[in-house]
Amino acid sequence: MQVGDLGEFEMIAKATSGSPMPPAVSVGPGDDAACFLLDGSAVISTDMYVEGVHFRTEWSDAGDIGRKVVAAAVADIEAMGAVPITLLVALGMPRDTSESWYEAFIDGVRHECVRANVALVGGDLSMAPQIVVTVTVVGQTGSVAPVTRDGAQPGQLVAMTGRLGWAAAGLAALGRGFRSPKAVVDAHRFPLVPYGAGREAALAGATAMIDVSDGLLADLGHIADDSGVVIDIATSKLAIGEPVAAVAQALGVDPLDYVLGGGEDHALVATFALGDVPVGWSVIGQVFEPSRGLEAGVLVDGHHPAQAGGWTHF
Amino acid sequence: MQVGDLGEFEMIAKATSGSPMPPAVSVGPGDDAACFLLDGSAVISTDMYVEGVHFRTEWSDAGDIGRKVVAAAVADIEAMGAVPITLLVALGMPRDTSESWYEAFIDGVRHECVRANVALVGGDLSMAPQIVVTVTVVGQTGSVAPVTRDGAQPGQLVAMTGRLGWAAAGLAALGRGFRSPKAVVDAHRFPLVPYGAGREAALAGATAMIDVSDGLLADLGHIADDSGVVIDIATSKLAIGEPVAAVAQALGVDPLDYVLGGGEDHALVATFALGDVPVGWSVIGQVFEPSRGLEAGVLVDGHHPAQAGGWTHF
Repeated sequence: MQVGDLGEFEMIAKATSGSPMPPAVSVGPGDDAACFLLDGSAVISTDMYVEGVHFRTEWSDAGDIGRKVVAAAVADIEAMGAVPITLLVALGMPRDTSESWYEAFIDGVRHECVRANVALVGGDLSMAPQIVVTVTVVGQTGSVAPVTRDGAQPGQLVAMTGRLGWAAAGLAALGRGFRSPKAVVDAHRFPLVPYGAGREAALAGATAMIDVSDGLLADLGHIADDSGVVIDIATSKLAIGEPVAAVAQALGVDPLDYVLGGGEDHALVATFALGDVPVGWSVIGQVFEPSRGLEAGVLVDGHHPAQAGGWTHF
Repeated sequence: MQVGDLGEFEMIAKATSGSPMPPAVSVGPGDDAACFLLDGSAVISTDMYVEGVHFRTEWSDAGDIGRKVVAAAVADIEAMGAVPITLLVALGMPRDTSESWYEAFIDGVRHECVRANVALVGGDLSMAPQIVVTVTVVGQTGSVAPVTRDGAQPGQLVAMTGRLGWAAAGLAALGRGFRSPKAVVDAHRFPLVPYGAGREAALAGATAMIDVSDGLLADLGHIADDSGVVIDIATSKLAIGEPVAAVAQALGVDPLDYVLGGGEDHALVATFALGDVPVGWSVIGQVFEPSRGLEAGVLVDGHHPAQAGGWTHF
């Protein structure tokens, strides 16, 4: 059975039936738009994922892709210190996509929505030459101001929670034709976002925060640039996962390349005043004032990193 | 110059620079997520547009496509009787897309955002094998309850504002190799959404409302089904635009096929109690109670329509 043989409305029902809406949602899926009440400001982010660019269907099954797109999008709301509330999924796919692929994708989306505690309130379906997904997530600030990228101050600490380098190591392994170590291959397939940790950081007084989607150095670079500060990372404080080290050794690369440059794990990195670092967060560096000969930017162990890091699309 | 030669951040700057944010927006483009205050409930909708499915680059220039995707998405917020506030655009495109195509697309997006009075607060850029755009629009209800599809009641009137059949006539002309009449070809390229009319309808007491994206019969069918009523459309009340009639005559079809079955003009159709129809809206039909032998659904001049109408993707 191909999705071209299913009706659009039957497909929407598969995605939305049996999911009770939280009390804040007054209009759920099935009307022109979804309606819901927010506490404080709305916080919104949208991300597009394209087959062959962000994932390959031979490396990631449909459920993995469903989980990945939700988790990666929710991470942006976490990175503002906000509480994710609702989510919309626009999905394009070829007419001959199998019904089972679609169902597994939706199962993955719904599974991750439960983990992230967000309600799937709407979306869109379209034909497309390949799989393409756009996920939009809405969160709320409540009474806590959003944590932007421009608040880091000299003298503060840099701390993180989550994993670094796992997805990159998994992608490297897959790229060489391996299907293991399973832990890092799975990390490429869908990230384990530290849900709730962004909110905890905001409540603890985080002064700037970002999720690591493009690589630690690249993403901390945004905080350094926007805050006008120097950030110095101590590599001795960075955890190198055992399977990350194993892939690096097998492929003859420095595991720090994955940890400093690899994206897609969606760890959270934030700056805090001394004493504000929450439980579960690891201090990995410090914030300094720029000085003559030392512009705002990111250092590694006090030196300019050789590896620029960071994935950009164009 | 191709977009592959531009940096991602330069491209984002082209899309967002020089657009002051309204006071409600506390965090605009450039962070992990945008933040803004809403009055009342959030109202949100997302739509995906794929090259070759929703538009062809040989029929629509980049500016047309930018205008179309914004207008069509905002129409969903209008159809809830809400006030559109912010908008996000996720854009996928081939690496060899010209810089001028991208700039014209962004100009179209920004132009239509001004017309619709929404702020472009975020988005995403990706490589993709063809142009694909997902637009997400957020509106607010203020103190007026959203107008859903399920509130039509027997004895009420059906009224509309905007145009019907123009985009379909334009698409038919283009499909036969014509580039005129310009008015309908332009209507296919981007709809003229009656901005503000949805809110006026809500304030006037509209009991159900939808925008005509798939065709009048199909979209009124959603109101009839969700409200459990019979809707009877009087074709004598439907305006047939002069260029719509011209295309129909040239192609030997009934112009009502375009008016009743054509989508993409994003007219607004709503039901009202007698006396509540706002200025600028035209009464085109009535709402009846279902009876034995007459299920909930849409009639045309008292008869079941021969043409089912309505575009579904799968």
